Amino acid sequence: MDAVDVIAEVPTSARKRERGGGRDGRRAGQGNRPPNRTTPYIMRNIPTYDVLGEESLIRIEDTADRILAEIGIEFRDDPVALEHWKSAGASVEGLLVKFEPGMLREILKSAPATFTQHARNPANNIEIGGKSVVFAPAYGSPFVMDLDKGRRYGTIEDFRNFIKLAQSSPWLHHSGGTICEPVDVPVNKRHLDMVYSHLKYSDRCFMGSVTAESRAEESIEMARIVFGRDFVDRNCVILGNVNVNSPLVWDGTMTNALRAYARANQAAVIVPFILGGAMGPVTSAGAIAQSLAETMAGCALTQLERKGAPVIFGNFLSSMSLRSGSPTFGTPEPAIGSMVIGQLARRLNLPLRCAGNFSNSKLPDAQAMNEGTMSMLSAVHCGANFILHSAGFLDGLLAMSYEKFVMDADFCGALHSYLAGVVVDDNTLALDAFREVGVGKHFLGCAHTMENYQTAFWDSSIADNEPFEKWDTAGRTDAASRANQRWKQMLADYQAPPMDEATDEALLDYVERTKATQADAWY
Amino acid sequence: MDAVDVIAEVPTSARKRERGGGRDGRRAGQGNRPPNRTTPYIMRNIPTYDVLGEESLIRIEDTADRILAEIGIEFRDDPVALEHWKSAGASVEGLLVKFEPGMLREILKSAPATFTQHARNPANNIEIGGKSVVFAPAYGSPFVMDLDKGRRYGTIEDFRNFIKLAQSSPWLHHSGGTICEPVDVPVNKRHLDMVYSHLKYSDRCFMGSVTAESRAEESIEMARIVFGRDFVDRNCVILGNVNVNSPLVWDGTMTNALRAYARANQAAVIVPFILGGAMGPVTSAGAIAQSLAETMAGCALTQLERKGAPVIFGNFLSSMSLRSGSPTFGTPEPAIGSMVIGQLARRLNLPLRCAGNFSNSKLPDAQAMNEGTMSMLSAVHCGANFILHSAGFLDGLLAMSYEKFVMDADFCGALHSYLAGVVVDDNTLALDAFREVGVGKHFLGCAHTMENYQTAFWDSSIADNEPFEKWDTAGRTDAASRANQRWKQMLADYQAPPMDEATDEALLDYVERTKATQADAWY
Repeated sequence: MDAVDVIAEVPTSARKRERGGGRDGRRAGQGNRPPNRTTPYIMRNIPTYDVLGEESLIRIEDTADRILAEIGIEFRDDPVALEHWKSAGASVEGLLVKFEPGMLREILKSAPATFTQHARNPANNIEIGGKSVVFAPAYGSPFVMDLDKGRRYGTIEDFRNFIKLAQSSPWLHHSGGTICEPVDVPVNKRHLDMVYSHLKYSDRCFMGSVTAESRAEESIEMARIVFGRDFVDRNCVILGNVNVNSPLVWDGTMTNALRAYARANQAAVIVPFILGGAMGPVTSAGAIAQSLAETMAGCALTQLERKGAPVIFGNFLSSMSLRSGSPTFGTPEPAIGSMVIGQLARRLNLPLRCAGNFSNSKLPDAQAMNEGTMSMLSAVHCGANFILHSAGFLDGLLAMSYEKFVMDADFCGALHSYLAGVVVDDNTLALDAFREVGVGKHFLGCAHTMENYQTAFWDSSIADNEPFEKWDTAGRTDAASRANQRWKQMLADYQAPPMDEATDEALLDYVERTKATQADAWY
Repeated sequence: MDAVDVIAEVPTSARKRERGGGRDGRRAGQGNRPPNRTTPYIMRNIPTYDVLGEESLIRIEDTADRILAEIGIEFRDDPVALEHWKSAGASVEGLLVKFEPGMLREILKSAPATFTQHARNPANNIEIGGKSVVFAPAYGSPFVMDLDKGRRYGTIEDFRNFIKLAQSSPWLHHSGGTICEPVDVPVNKRHLDMVYSHLKYSDRCFMGSVTAESRAEESIEMARIVFGRDFVDRNCVILGNVNVNSPLVWDGTMTNALRAYARANQAAVIVPFILGGAMGPVTSAGAIAQSLAETMAGCALTQLERKGAPVIFGNFLSSMSLRSGSPTFGTPEPAIGSMVIGQLARRLNLPLRCAGNFSNSKLPDAQAMNEGTMSMLSAVHCGANFILHSAGFLDGLLAMSYEKFVMDADFCGALHSYLAGVVVDDNTLALDAFREVGVGKHFLGCAHTMENYQTAFWDSSIADNEPFEKWDTAGRTDAASRANQRWKQMLADYQAPPMDEATDEALLDYVERTKATQADAWY
């Protein structure tokens, strides 16, 4: 039986009724619409993948406790943080803080297990925690690249382009933060342009600056212009992603930003970035214990700044090539290690952030999607609620690729279907279809197929699924060249979400006034 | 802290001691040696990923039972099979066989949960069942392709080349079967050349022909020449992969071959190939129930032919693009559906075969490795013991790609590390390393790193992990072009495993005599 021969039997009119919509839908980079798209994020219908047993988890937790109690964590350039720790009963000697076993867990009980991040368009509000899964673009690359112009430093135009691409994709849920560094804007002012761009060109949730306490506060202030001061004090509308300076150091820049977000009742995302063998042990269990210790300390500090403030337990495990000294990404050890981090975060009852899709490749090639798919599936399996870096990374986190971005967004679409799991009910079991079709015949024309095929299967908008001969005569494209066409079309088709003029003017006025208070700084 | 800067502190002599070894190892396509390489297959150290609960599994099993009892399965052109079913108490009307609920499960109790397949070199014997995972090359493509010559029909030279590549890879465990169709050899004689090539150019386990009962028997006869008649009667030395003609038809060619393998105490692999919406329902739950029904019938037939014969529960779920009518591969629905198949196979206590790494792409590009990685990880997560199609497939199963083959073999290496899981013990928890390093310093030179780094991380032999500038000046290669260099080097370096002259002569004599008994047939 040949599927290609019998497809002709599906009436054309029925084929055209596809949700997500035919040629136009595909042109917009959508593919079809899988079932798991009733909320502006994903509610997972498959369990998390728990790889370690209770005994091993307890040993890792005990090790984290011993690291915290015996070695401690240094808090630099933030006297207020040290005061918080003293008041909470930690041992503080100089900059070094040591914690009795169990102390941080006790403090963390006030952090919510789930919270809502509000978007400018309430239809795009997201839940963070529980069974929810949110995909956000990659974050923090100094470079951008595409097939036409190669690699170069990112600009504010690139930054806006990626916001527009994310906003245009039905498979991403969040506008992200520093999608790429706009290096054509002064370092001390670019956060204002970035936050304005997120608010203006997207109506989804977004992230603010963390590179200085003042920039964090200014990011939040801009959110207050849009959402209102009281609303922001009562609801989360902005996230700030803060990194530990692993091993076992929290820099004041980060803790001051973290406290600014918490103080405003906004969610800090607490993320150690551990390259095993460099910023942590070369063995996964130790790196995971360290990650747990560092993250618990950061999360607890938010609760000391403001009890009950939302906070996200983050992680970024990575490996390195000890032959060349280069960090490696999308490798198996961090992929399986993230599953353990997920188990530990759930035992703390905190929402989990994981890093999604990244690769060391310098091109949107086979390596890029092998490493990217491995790491993204790990993020999905480990139960991450907020998956940063879901789309765009190449070059070992150093570059945002336009082509990789749309490939990854397409894969995020596939993951909507994947996370919907296998639904088991009378319709899906299809006993009537077997009765109708019998033995040795095909199911293409049967009633059950006609009723279900429109939402049955994910249909990628990047993949080529044509027979070889059709692909051959159509120009023998590879995925990268199709992605190149796609992002250009998406940018051409982009439509800005409406924003009322008064809000826009107030934002622009704030940006202008704030910029005027200081001279440009370029490093 | 910059990992690239501090790598210099690792003594050169220590770096050179790497297992799997430096430049030579890398040239042979090995990368480094992850921990999970103490057996000639993998013993998984992570649990399977069970996505459905008990109630849903029972509903699928009940549906399979109702399909078997109410609709039945047709057995064509095999009167002996019909006799077996009659004797076993099934209802047989014409070619249609119906089974009382529970009947097949009862018959299947005599099949072993685990068995050994013996290799010509006993060091390469594999276990199939339980926690073992075996990677075998892809199977059955009429075409081959490489970057130099594009796509063309496979030849016996291509066939031998892929055996040599598989034999040269430390990350594949099995020589496979019809790796590609050698279309320059007559259809009715090519199985003799294929089996001879597996035995001659590889010393690992392999598969025989199933395209006619006589060809299955001749494949087994050649195994007897190598292993001895009595040994073969008592031990599994050859597998035969037989396909259901879904929906609900077993063709006589296949059942005669499966009975030939079972009769000789060799393992048949029972595989429905269901494109949802064509050979089965468009909804996964129904396709899974059908797959279960068809596979149980095939597996049970081996037990009626010879009670206790080894048999493998196989499956191949796939989706189709109902827009174009093309089958699609590496898509999310079959990936998650395979996890359910795994749960069902374990409830039957049978070894599981799953399909590994496949894609619709016509090139070893980003699509190829996105779809391939998705499907291969599904095979690994679902608990498959024998993963056919672990390396090489492109073009929707129609072509074996030389470049994809070595990329996939490299990914199989990564999966050795992945399946080793996270080991939790005093060494990996590394508390002494934290004590040695303290806060804010790096782990590169510490004693724990020196003791563990050689086996800590998978290091791909295909991926580029260099900084951008080094990659740029080294020629800006993509993964496909590196793979192109790699397979050529592997073929140049290939060394045939020794075979004693008498055995070789006996095999060649058998091939010659058997070929002489009939005229060439070309279709």
